[in-house]
Amino acid sequence: MHLVTFLPSEKSVTVPTGTSLLDAATQTGVAITAPCGGEGVCGECRVRIASGTVECVSRGCLSANERAQGWVLACSSRITGNVTVQVPQAEVVEQAQIVDDHAAGRGAHKAATQVAKPLTSKRYLQVEPSALDNSFCDFERLTRAVKDDGGPDSVTTDLEVLRELAATLRAQDHGVTATIVAGDENTPAEMIRVEPGNVVSRQVGLAIDVGTTTCAVNLVELANNHVLGTAADYNGQLARGADIISRINYAKTPQRIEELRQLVLTTLNALIEGLCGTHAISPRQIDNAVVAGNTTMVHLLLGLNPDYIRLEPYTPTVNRPARLRAREVGLAMNPKAYVLFAPGIGSYVGGDITAGLLQTALAHDGDDVRLFLDIGTNGEVVVGTGEWLMACAASAGPAFEGSGVTCGMRASNGAIERIRIDAQTGRTDVTVIGGSDPRGVCGSGMIDLLAELWTAGLLDPSGKLDFHRGGGRIQAADQTGRNLAFTIVPEGYSDTGQAITLDERDIQNLLRTKAAVYSACAIMLRSVGLDFDAIAEVYVAGGFGRFLDLEKSIMIGLLPDLPMKRFTYLGNSALSGAQAMLCDATARQRVRQLADRITYLELNVDPAYMDEYTAALFLPHTDIDRFPSVKAKLASKSAG
Amino acid sequence: MHLVTFLPSEKSVTVPTGTSLLDAATQTGVAITAPCGGEGVCGECRVRIASGTVECVSRGCLSANERAQGWVLACSSRITGNVTVQVPQAEVVEQAQIVDDHAAGRGAHKAATQVAKPLTSKRYLQVEPSALDNSFCDFERLTRAVKDDGGPDSVTTDLEVLRELAATLRAQDHGVTATIVAGDENTPAEMIRVEPGNVVSRQVGLAIDVGTTTCAVNLVELANNHVLGTAADYNGQLARGADIISRINYAKTPQRIEELRQLVLTTLNALIEGLCGTHAISPRQIDNAVVAGNTTMVHLLLGLNPDYIRLEPYTPTVNRPARLRAREVGLAMNPKAYVLFAPGIGSYVGGDITAGLLQTALAHDGDDVRLFLDIGTNGEVVVGTGEWLMACAASAGPAFEGSGVTCGMRASNGAIERIRIDAQTGRTDVTVIGGSDPRGVCGSGMIDLLAELWTAGLLDPSGKLDFHRGGGRIQAADQTGRNLAFTIVPEGYSDTGQAITLDERDIQNLLRTKAAVYSACAIMLRSVGLDFDAIAEVYVAGGFGRFLDLEKSIMIGLLPDLPMKRFTYLGNSALSGAQAMLCDATARQRVRQLADRITYLELNVDPAYMDEYTAALFLPHTDIDRFPSVKAKLASKSAG
Repeated sequence: MHLVTFLPSEKSVTVPTGTSLLDAATQTGVAITAPCGGEGVCGECRVRIASGTVECVSRGCLSANERAQGWVLACSSRITGNVTVQVPQAEVVEQAQIVDDHAAGRGAHKAATQVAKPLTSKRYLQVEPSALDNSFCDFERLTRAVKDDGGPDSVTTDLEVLRELAATLRAQDHGVTATIVAGDENTPAEMIRVEPGNVVSRQVGLAIDVGTTTCAVNLVELANNHVLGTAADYNGQLARGADIISRINYAKTPQRIEELRQLVLTTLNALIEGLCGTHAISPRQIDNAVVAGNTTMVHLLLGLNPDYIRLEPYTPTVNRPARLRAREVGLAMNPKAYVLFAPGIGSYVGGDITAGLLQTALAHDGDDVRLFLDIGTNGEVVVGTGEWLMACAASAGPAFEGSGVTCGMRASNGAIERIRIDAQTGRTDVTVIGGSDPRGVCGSGMIDLLAELWTAGLLDPSGKLDFHRGGGRIQAADQTGRNLAFTIVPEGYSDTGQAITLDERDIQNLLRTKAAVYSACAIMLRSVGLDFDAIAEVYVAGGFGRFLDLEKSIMIGLLPDLPMKRFTYLGNSALSGAQAMLCDATARQRVRQLADRITYLELNVDPAYMDEYTAALFLPHTDIDRFPSVKAKLASKSAG
Repeated sequence: MHLVTFLPSEKSVTVPTGTSLLDAATQTGVAITAPCGGEGVCGECRVRIASGTVECVSRGCLSANERAQGWVLACSSRITGNVTVQVPQAEVVEQAQIVDDHAAGRGAHKAATQVAKPLTSKRYLQVEPSALDNSFCDFERLTRAVKDDGGPDSVTTDLEVLRELAATLRAQDHGVTATIVAGDENTPAEMIRVEPGNVVSRQVGLAIDVGTTTCAVNLVELANNHVLGTAADYNGQLARGADIISRINYAKTPQRIEELRQLVLTTLNALIEGLCGTHAISPRQIDNAVVAGNTTMVHLLLGLNPDYIRLEPYTPTVNRPARLRAREVGLAMNPKAYVLFAPGIGSYVGGDITAGLLQTALAHDGDDVRLFLDIGTNGEVVVGTGEWLMACAASAGPAFEGSGVTCGMRASNGAIERIRIDAQTGRTDVTVIGGSDPRGVCGSGMIDLLAELWTAGLLDPSGKLDFHRGGGRIQAADQTGRNLAFTIVPEGYSDTGQAITLDERDIQNLLRTKAAVYSACAIMLRSVGLDFDAIAEVYVAGGFGRFLDLEKSIMIGLLPDLPMKRFTYLGNSALSGAQAMLCDATARQRVRQLADRITYLELNVDPAYMDEYTAALFLPHTDIDRFPSVKAKLASKSAG
C-alpha cells in the first residue's frame, strides 16, 4: 500500500500498487477532469509529480517539455510507491445562468398535448364507514371507493399505507385523499399515499432529459401541462468523458459505474431541488417523473454496466426499463413514486429519440415519408411514415453542443449565436445570448461561422483556412504552423479578455459531425429505396441554440437541400416528449407503439457508410449536385 | 424524567412521569410476562417495589398481604419518581422439545395435494447470444428464453438483477438459472435472481402457521411436497396476552405494535433458522413461503393496528394482504422473495380457516352439508357445501391449547394425553407424550379428564367436584374452601415433583370453551334452517394433541352427537393448508374461491347466541335430548 497526497488540497489516500492516479484522486474526492474517459488521449487530466515516481502507461499527448517538468496523465499513471502530486487548479465547469428556453416550447412545432391522466394522481374519496351490515375490511372499502370514483378496478398498496390506514380513514370521517399510480400492462395500480381529509392540491411532475452533455428538467403543473420552470446544467459525468464512448471506457469497474451514477444524480437532484426551491414545493411531494435519455445515459443513471453497448454486436442490458421507484433510481422526489422511462430501441437509439418522435406527425397515422434528425452529442436519424419507421445512429460527436471545439459552449449567456463576417476585412459582427461580452460560440453560431467563412472565401471546401485572406484574422494556431486559426473575437473584446478563435482542428470536428449526420440520412434513405426528394417533412431536434439558420445548415451540408418550408425545428424534443408522457396516458401508449414500430439499422456494419461519410466531409459535399440550391447560389455569387 | 432500575439485572432506564413499569421494563429488555395484555387482571406481571414509590392504578388481583409487602402490577403502575423494582425470576416459558407430528400429516384426512407450481421456481435457460442480426437487449433475450421455456409471457425484474445481467449472461455462455415468481391477477411475474450456469437445485419452501398460542413451520421440499422438518414453539407474544383480545388491548401504541411484531418474528425466525440449520440450508436460499394465521395474528405480524378488530363493528385493516416481500415482512429468508397469505374472511375468521378448508371436501364441488370446526385459541365454525359456505367465530378461549388452565400445556414432551380414573379410589392412569414424568395436561388429556371425572361421579354436570368422593384426591384448592381441586398426579410423581391438579375454575374455563364451540355450531345451523342430523361430515381441526377421543368429546358436549364415522380429525389444518398453497397453484386459486364463497356471520350481535351458550355450559348440555347416545350410555350405566 502506498500513500498518495494531492496538492494543494493536501488530501491523501492509501492505495495498492497499480492503482491509477485518477482513481486515487476520485477516492479522496479530488476533482480531476478526464473528458476522454481515462483513455490517455485528451491530456486534460494532467498533473505534476511533486515527489516520488509513478509508472506512466501513456503520456503521448504531453509535449517533451511538459514531460521533463514532471507532468503526467492521471488516468495513465500507475502508483508504485508513495507519491505527492500537484493538481492544477480545476477549471470551473461552465455554470452560466441558463437562459435557454428550449424546454418551454421554443420549437416552432409542438404537438398538441392532451392533458389527460398523469401516471400518478390524487383522488378525494368518501369511503363507506364500516358497519355490522358492511363488514368489508378497511382496505376493501377503500378500493371500492376508488372504483366508484372512476379509478382502477383493482389497486394494491404497501405496508406503510396499511399500517396507518385504520387511523387515516377514521381521522376525518372516512374522507381521504389517495395518491394512485395508474397500472399498465406489466404492473397493477398502486396507492402510494393515503391522507386524511381532502388534500387534493396543485400536482406537479418532472420531465427529465438526461443528455450526454446537458441535463434538463421541466417542473410541470400536471393539470394544464404548464411548465412552471426549466433548469438545465452540464451533466456532471462530463468530468469523466465528453462523449458516450469515453464514459463507457471510464466505467470499467462497479465502483466507477457507481461514481458515474452519483455524478449524474447530483446534477439532476440539484436541478430538481433548485426548481422546487423557486416554486416553494417539497421534492417529496412530487409523485410523477418521466426520464428520456439515450441508452448509455439511462444505463449510467441506473448503474447498469454499459460495456456491451460499446462492443460489437452493441447490446444494451435493457432498452425498456420497467417503471422504477424514485427511491431505487435515487431521484429527489417522493421515494415511493414511480419514474417512467421513454423506451429505447438499441444501443445508439434511445428513449430520447422515441420521446422526441412523440412531438412529430410520425407518432400518428399518415403515408407521408418524414425524416427526424437529432443532432446532439450523438446524431440519430429516423425515417418513416405512420406505418413504418427505421432508425440509425451516426457518431456525430458533440461539436454542435459546444464540446470538442475550442471556443464551443452551450446556448447559455455569453454564447455567440449569430455571426456575420466581412469578406474583405475579416471583421465579425456577432450576436451574443444575454447581450453580454462573448464567452464562446454555441451550435447555431458554429453553423453561421462555417457558412460565413466559406462564402467569404476564407475557408475552402475541405476545411482549410486561407492564411492570405481575412485581414490578419487568420494566424497560425501553434508553433508548428500547420494549424491555422480564425479570430472570431480579438483579445480584449471577450468576457475573459482572451481572443475567441476557431482553428482547423475545430473545423475538422465540425465537418465530421455534419458529415456523420448527412451520410446517415443518405444511407438510411438508400436502404429503403428513397431519395431526399421523397421527404415531405424534416424535423430537426438538438441543442444548437435558440435559432437554427436552416439556409446556412443546408449551405454547409448538414441538412439536405430541400425547400425551407419542409423543415421544422423542434428544439429539445426529448424533454418535451418526456413532458407529454408525464401528462398524458395517450402519449405513454403512443411512445410504446413507436418503439415497437422502429427497425434499428446498425450503420457501423454497413460498408457503404464509410464511402458516404467520406464524401460528405466537404462543404457542402463532394457531389455538389446533391445541393442544387447551394450550387445555384455559388454560381450567382461568382457571376455577381 | 425518572430513573427506573430493575433488580436483579440492575438494568435501568430514564422515562417520563406516567410511564408504566411494564413499558419501562420493555424498554430495558427486562422480561415481564403480561398474559392479560396489561389489563391489570391476571396478576402475572407482579413486581415488588424495592425503593421509591409508584402510582398504582389497579392491583385488585393482589392479596392484602402481597400489597403490604410492596407487590404491585407492572402493567398498572405509573412511574412518578425514581424507583427500584425487584422482578421475580421469570418463569421459563415452556420450550420442551416438540414431538408433535401434527404438521407432518398426522391427520387421518389429507387431501391429495398436487405438486404443481410453487409460487417461485427456478429455470435453467439457454439464452440466445446477441448478434448483429439479433439486436435485442439482454433483458429482452432473457425474457424470450423464459417464454420459450414455458414460463410466463411477460416478466419484470429489479435493478439489482439488471446491474449484474450483462456479466451473468456472458459468464457461462448465456446459460443462466432464473428464479421466477409467478404472476397473479394483481402482480406480474418477476425474476428475483439470475445466476450463471445451471444451479437448479433442491428447492424448499416454508409453510407457516401463526397461531395465537403456537407457531409452527414446515420446511417443505417443493418438488414432491415432502416435509423435511417441522418446528413449533409458543408465540413469543404470549408474554403480552394469552388470547387475541388481550394482545389487542396491549397493542395500544405504535411502539407496542412494533414490539408485538418483533416478538412473533423472533419466534418464527428462530424456527426457520433451526430448521435450516438441521437441513444445511441457507435461509437466504428460500424463495417461497405461505403464512396462515387468524386475522389478528396476521395484523400483528405485519405491524397493522388491530384495534378496530376488537371494536364494533369489528373491522380489520385488511383481510387479504397482497403478497409481500420477505424483507418487508421481516422473515428470515431471501429478502426479495414473496410471502403469500391465506385470505381472511373477517375479524374473527382468518386465513387459518380458509387454509384449513383447503384440506376438506368443502374446497371442491358437492351437495353434502359439511361442518368444519377449528378449536384453537379461538373457535371457528364453518358450515356449507361445495356451493355455499357460512362462517362464524366463537370466543372459545385457549383452554384446549393449554392456556387458562393451571395444569394446561401444549402437546409436547411431558404432556398427559390420556387419563383413566378409578371411580372408587380416584387414582389415575395417565399416558405421557415422550414417556417421561408428566409435566401437565394437553387438550386431548383435558377432554379425557372431564369425561372421566364426570362418568366416575366425581364431577356434577355443572362442573362442581364432589369433596366426599375420589378417595381424598379432591381437596380445597385454597384457603377460601370455595374452590375444590382434583389431584391428577400427586406430589413427587411429576417432572417437577409438584402435584398436577385441576380445580373448579379450570373446569369452568373448559366448560366455557366447549360451550362456545357447540353453541356456535348450533346457531350457525339454525340460521340456515338445518339440524345437526343434516351434517354429512364433521371436520375437527385444532391443536389438542396427537389423538382426539371423539367419543369423550361428544360425551362432554364439545362435539355434536353424531355417528363416529361422520367425524374426520384434521390436526393442524392451517399448517397443512398453507403447505398446499406453497406447492400448488390450484390450491392458491381454490383458497381465493373459498374466501369469495364464505359469508361471515357475526355471533356477538345474535341475541339467540347467549341463550344457546348458557344452555351448553352443562355436561353434556342442559337439553340432554340433544345427546341421545350420551343419554343412552348414562341410562345403561345407572341401570347396570
